[in-house]
Amino acid sequence: MKALKSYYAVIFSSTQNKNIEGYAEMAEKMETLAKQQKGFIGIESARNEIGITVSYWETLEAIKNWKQQSEHLQAQLKGRQDWYSWYHVRICKVEREYEFLQQQESV
Amino acid sequence: MKALKSYYAVIFSSTQNKNIEGYAEMAEKMETLAKQQKGFIGIESARNEIGITVSYWETLEAIKNWKQQSEHLQAQLKGRQDWYSWYHVRICKVEREYEFLQQQESV
Repeated sequence: MKALKSYYAVIFSSTQNKNIEGYAEMAEKMETLAKQQKGFIGIESARNEIGITVSYWETLEAIKNWKQQSEHLQAQLKGRQDWYSWYHVRICKVEREYEFLQQQESV
Repeated sequence: MKALKSYYAVIFSSTQNKNIEGYAEMAEKMETLAKQQKGFIGIESARNEIGITVSYWETLEAIKNWKQQSEHLQAQLKGRQDWYSWYHVRICKVEREYEFLQQQESV
């Protein structure tokens, strides 16, 4: 992930319906597409009872453009119609961060 | 979750080692403890290859206090020594949000 002075995170929390036919393919397609957008930095995703996807963006404009991207709009509609029972989107400014990386043990 | 004018999110992304003995108990204990902290709003968590935990707080001071809480400090140390191969913490200001809730179908 690129080091940037200031950037943004979109936290997408969701619960899904029982029948999520077509969801996995669409999720993969959207991730590929997101990565091609201007201002995209990175994406992280995990799901158990709840799903959390966090995508990182250089500017608020990049987030807005991605939200309005035509194929993404179709995916959002399909998501509300068929796949998600609930979701919550939070657009956040990353104010501080730190990282830990375990030292590799010598072999 | 309470409706608030402005609040903060702590995004904790991580990968774990193979041996995570004691982790589940500690994670549960820390979640219980976090919920008792002043300024705590909510917490969401999911894990597959990567784990993402997002906790929500009323102020940056509440986040700082939780980071320095004594039992939590011990848990963080244990996490770096034994459980986590990597983690990344981002402290974010929630700037905008929206929510979707599926309409219940009539029975």
